[in-house]
Amino acid sequence: MSANESPKTEHYQTIAAEPFTQMERNAVYRAIYERRDMRHFAGGTVSDEVLLRLLRAAHHAPSVGLMQPWRFIRVRDRAVREGMHALVEQERVLTAQALGVRAEDFMKLKVQGVLEAAEVLVLAMPPGREAHVFGRRTMPEMDVASAACAIENLWLAARAEGLGMGWVSIYDPHALAQFMQMPAGSYPLAVLCLGPVDAYYAQPMLQQEKWASRAPLEDMLFDEQWGQKAKMALPDDTA
Amino acid sequence: MSANESPKTEHYQTIAAEPFTQMERNAVYRAIYERRDMRHFAGGTVSDEVLLRLLRAAHHAPSVGLMQPWRFIRVRDRAVREGMHALVEQERVLTAQALGVRAEDFMKLKVQGVLEAAEVLVLAMPPGREAHVFGRRTMPEMDVASAACAIENLWLAARAEGLGMGWVSIYDPHALAQFMQMPAGSYPLAVLCLGPVDAYYAQPMLQQEKWASRAPLEDMLFDEQWGQKAKMALPDDTA
Repeated sequence: MSANESPKTEHYQTIAAEPFTQMERNAVYRAIYERRDMRHFAGGTVSDEVLLRLLRAAHHAPSVGLMQPWRFIRVRDRAVREGMHALVEQERVLTAQALGVRAEDFMKLKVQGVLEAAEVLVLAMPPGREAHVFGRRTMPEMDVASAACAIENLWLAARAEGLGMGWVSIYDPHALAQFMQMPAGSYPLAVLCLGPVDAYYAQPMLQQEKWASRAPLEDMLFDEQWGQKAKMALPDDTA
Repeated sequence: MSANESPKTEHYQTIAAEPFTQMERNAVYRAIYERRDMRHFAGGTVSDEVLLRLLRAAHHAPSVGLMQPWRFIRVRDRAVREGMHALVEQERVLTAQALGVRAEDFMKLKVQGVLEAAEVLVLAMPPGREAHVFGRRTMPEMDVASAACAIENLWLAARAEGLGMGWVSIYDPHALAQFMQMPAGSYPLAVLCLGPVDAYYAQPMLQQEKWASRAPLEDMLFDEQWGQKAKMALPDDTA
């Protein structure tokens, strides 16, 4: 194949591009709509079999240049969890101060998942990412984007399994990296609290707390260039 | 409620934390396993009805502090597409040079989706993101992470609908922002090529091209701290 010739789809091993059945499709949308960022956990356990399914789902995420910038540290030791929780509490206070007038509302939103969830996973990006230039020369943040896709896969799979998950990003990542004995150049992108929950929030918890609401979809869409309102017809109140 | 008291789940409107049926669960995993980063498109069209379902799926992604850092610019104008494609081609050459010995392999991997896909969507992060401190004071990249979750939702929904999608990150984001007349402080995180495809790659295209392979899952897992091999039993060759 010459460098000027684009390989066609038939150049590859393929599977048919058929849509899912309506029942399958509904299940995918159900996971997407019912997934919630959970802060309330019911203790209990996650079986290794289910945890493995969730981790495989994460590992099948897309990644730029197939760099797979995710490692998962499973934390069960109580002392480690308490150290992590202390880091979260420190940052909660500093974030509240930065929020000013909303400090009190923010402090009401407890983050107890690190102590209470059946499982805690730290998603750590490995060192040496600068070697991955494919799709990242001008956009180095594509490692974060790829790792976030892995987390979203895990989140949706957790919903399908009837488990809850919360993504905690309220900590100093450098302090957490040091605490977790992570090597130089690695980065703890997420603390994931995962496990049985009593129930899912029917709407996002932050919306129920009136912190913010989902925007109307029409405000998110433009045609051709920034700011040009999309012409696509949207049902009323589409969020 | 005092600031020292954590609201319980029953404080909220909830839905039952029941697992999906096995059929529903399988559908979610099927979408996760069969989703592919597509570079080959079959032209055609995407109906507004389907496009709306995909965009709503994206808009129901998690976002830190519910900041919803995503706007979608739908590009159908041929001249705009050609301008975007030219930016991608420029960066392809620069990336190839940066890759050195792998330059030739890289240049064989064409990126024609911007011209050939039924739909092209630019995911643009809006200006003013610095006001969102919730979960971002120490981790400002959480806007990128949130937007990536929206893209993963869209990707999985596209698989369920029988459509293909590719995420292009081979361009200078500042040049693209200028070309798309985006305001200062906004950022084009993704060019998404979306539409009918002849077939899906059975394994990731980059793996079939021997650019990289999926790592064994066991290399991705640690217990308690970085580098401590996970004890969880994994089936042989689990990727």
